[in-house]
Amino acid sequence: MRALRFHGNKDVRVDEIPEPALRPGWVKVKNAWAGICGSDLHEYSIGPMNAPTKPHILTGESLPSVLGHEFAGTIVELGEGVTDLEVGQKVAVFPVLSDHTCYWCQEETYGLCEKWGFLGYSGYGGGMAQYICIDKEAIHKLPDNMPLDVGALVEPLAVAWHAVKLSKVGPEHHCLVVGAGPIGIATVHCLLAHGVRSVIVSEPSPARMQHAKDAGASYVLDATKEDVPAFCKKIADGYGVHAAFECAGIQAAFDVALASVRGKGAIINISIFENPLVIKTPNLINRRSISYIGSNIYTRVEFQEVIDAIASGRIKAPEKMITGRVSLDDAVDKGFRVLLDQKDKHVKVLVDPWA
Amino acid sequence: MRALRFHGNKDVRVDEIPEPALRPGWVKVKNAWAGICGSDLHEYSIGPMNAPTKPHILTGESLPSVLGHEFAGTIVELGEGVTDLEVGQKVAVFPVLSDHTCYWCQEETYGLCEKWGFLGYSGYGGGMAQYICIDKEAIHKLPDNMPLDVGALVEPLAVAWHAVKLSKVGPEHHCLVVGAGPIGIATVHCLLAHGVRSVIVSEPSPARMQHAKDAGASYVLDATKEDVPAFCKKIADGYGVHAAFECAGIQAAFDVALASVRGKGAIINISIFENPLVIKTPNLINRRSISYIGSNIYTRVEFQEVIDAIASGRIKAPEKMITGRVSLDDAVDKGFRVLLDQKDKHVKVLVDPWA
Ligand SMILES: [Zn+2]
Ligand SMILES: [Zn+2]
Repeated sequence: MRALRFHGNKDVRVDEIPEPALRPGWVKVKNAWAGICGSDLHEYSIGPMNAPTKPHILTGESLPSVLGHEFAGTIVELGEGVTDLEVGQKVAVFPVLSDHTCYWCQEETYGLCEKWGFLGYSGYGGGMAQYICIDKEAIHKLPDNMPLDVGALVEPLAVAWHAVKLSKVGPEHHCLVVGAGPIGIATVHCLLAHGVRSVIVSEPSPARMQHAKDAGASYVLDATKEDVPAFCKKIADGYGVHAAFECAGIQAAFDVALASVRGKGAIINISIFENPLVIKTPNLINRRSISYIGSNIYTRVEFQEVIDAIASGRIKAPEKMITGRVSLDDAVDKGFRVLLDQKDKHVKVLVDPWA
Repeated sequence: MRALRFHGNKDVRVDEIPEPALRPGWVKVKNAWAGICGSDLHEYSIGPMNAPTKPHILTGESLPSVLGHEFAGTIVELGEGVTDLEVGQKVAVFPVLSDHTCYWCQEETYGLCEKWGFLGYSGYGGGMAQYICIDKEAIHKLPDNMPLDVGALVEPLAVAWHAVKLSKVGPEHHCLVVGAGPIGIATVHCLLAHGVRSVIVSEPSPARMQHAKDAGASYVLDATKEDVPAFCKKIADGYGVHAAFECAGIQAAFDVALASVRGKGAIINISIFENPLVIKTPNLINRRSISYIGSNIYTRVEFQEVIDAIASGRIKAPEKMITGRVSLDDAVDKGFRVLLDQKDKHVKVLVDPWA
C-alpha cells in the first residue's frame, strides 16, 4: 500500500509498504482522510521529536513512521474475537497509544505517560496511509451520514473541546480567542457549540480573520489596529470576558488575554511557546483572582463528545475548517510546504491516501 | 479613646480621639486584640496606598486612618433596631467594606469593587483603637470559650482558607507551601484543617522553618540546601505534590512550585510580587495541565468557616501563630519596626489597645 512516511528532518516520502496485519482484537481500517497538524509540521521542520529513533516501548517500532493522527475511514476487516463492530462501519481513530497501566493514563492525562505514544508518530501506522490495523479500543464509530472528511476533524476539535471544558464556560459567558490558527478556529467552533454569549477573536492576519468569520465568531478584531481589551470590556458587561483562550503561543497574545479577562476569569493556554513567558504584572493574577490553565490533549469521553456534537449539529459546519485537500504525492509540496510558508492561508489541509 | 492612626508615610501615631458614635443598625465593640498585617507594614513603609487621601466613597473619611483589620472584641452597646445581638457577645469583625450593590461585591470578589474599602484603612475606624462602631452586618459571633487573641487570627487565617479552598485539596492530596511567612504559616494551619496527606514547607530562614514546625507541617525543608522538587516527588507517590502554595512572591518560589507540582496540579498564588514573573518553560504548563490560580481575600462564608474550624478544633492551636504582643504605645517600635527589620522573627504580633 502507499503511505506518507517521516524518515527524518525534512525527509517525508511516499513509500510503498506492506499492508498492515490484523491481530486478535484489532480491526483493519481503510483510511479516507487525514489532516496535517501543526505538530506534523514541527516534526518535519525540526524533528524527529515525536517519532522514535529507537524502538518505541509500546509499538516496538521506530523511524520511518507513517504520519497522520487526525483521521477517519471505514472498517474493512475484523480481527479474531471482534464481535461488536462491523465491516463498513465509518470510524474515527483515537490516536493516543496507552497500555492503560500507569497513573496518568488512568487519569487520562496521556501527555504525562512515560510510555507516551501517538498513532502517526510512534508506530502502528497512521492516517496518511491507505490502511491501518489497530486495537478495536481505539475505534470511535461515526454516524452513517457523517462525511469522512469531517470525521478527520474530530481529533483537532477534541483538542479545543478539552480546553473549552476546562474553562467551564456556558451560555452566560463571554469568550475571547487570541489567535485564529487551526487551534483557534477549532476553539471558536467548540465555544459556539457550548452556546456561549459571545466569541470574540483577535488576530493580526486578514486571511485568518476571514477563517474566524467563516467559523461563525461573533466579533473578529484586527489585532494590529483594535484595542482588544477595551472591546472585550465594552461587549462583556463592562468587565471583560470570562475566559480567554491563548492560541498563539506568543507574549503579546498572553498580554492581551490577561488584559481582556475579567476578575475570577480564566486564561486557557492551548498553544506552544518558543520563548519564556513573562507575567509583567503578577499581582493582577491574585488581585483579580485569575486562573491560568494549561490544556493538553483530551480524554476518550471528550473525543466521543465531539463526534456527538457534530452529529447533533451542536458543532455547526465544521467542514468549513477544511481549506485544502491534497493527494499523497502532493502532501509535502502542496501540504506541508504551503502550511509552513504561508501560515495563514489554510485552516486544515486533508490528505487523501487514495488520490 | 486611644487609637493607633496612620497619618502618612512612616508616620503612625497614638492619638487621643473621640469614641465613635453608634448609628441605627450598628454595634459598638470594645476591641481586645488586633494583628499587624504585612499590608500594614507596606502602608507604613511606602503608603499611603490603601488609606484614602481624599474622602472615601463609602465612609466619607480620609487620612489619618485608625489601623487594624485583623481584630476581635466584645460588644458593649447596641444601636437602634439591633435585636439579634447582645452586649457581652465576643465577635470578630469582617473588615471588607461594601455597599453590596456592585457585581463584584455580589460575587464576593471584593478586591475588584471600585468602591473597595477596608476597616483599618478606609475609615469607620479599625482594630487598633479601644472601640469601633460598625454595621451589625460585619459582625461574626465568636464562641464564648474562644479567646479574643485567637479571634484576631480569623482574618489572616481566612486569607489562607480561601486559597486552600480554591486549590480543592482534600485528604488524598500532598501539598507544598513555599515560604513560611505569616501567610505561609496560616496556609499550613488551613491545609492541616483540610486533612491533606502531607504539608511540605520550603523556607530558607531557620526562624521561619521553626514557625512551620510549630504550626505542625509534615516536613520542613531548608530551601537553601534541599532539592525541594525531588523531595516532593519522593513523598508524593513519585509524581510531585497536587498543590503548591506560592507564599513568597519571588521568582525562585514560583520556580520551585512549578517544578514540584504534579501533572494536573495547581499552583496557588497568595503573595505579592515586586517584580515581573517569568515562566521559563511555559510549555510545561500545558503539557502537564497545570493551573496557576490567583487567590485574594475571602468570602463571608469562608470567614465564618474559619471561626467554625477553630471552634471545632479542625484548625489546631492557631494561637501558636501569636509570637508577640505589644501595647499601643509600643506598636510602632516593638511591632512595625521589628516586623520590618527582622522579617523572620515573628509570625503574628498582636496589638492590645488597652495596654
Ligand atoms: Zn501511561
Ligand atoms: Zn462593590
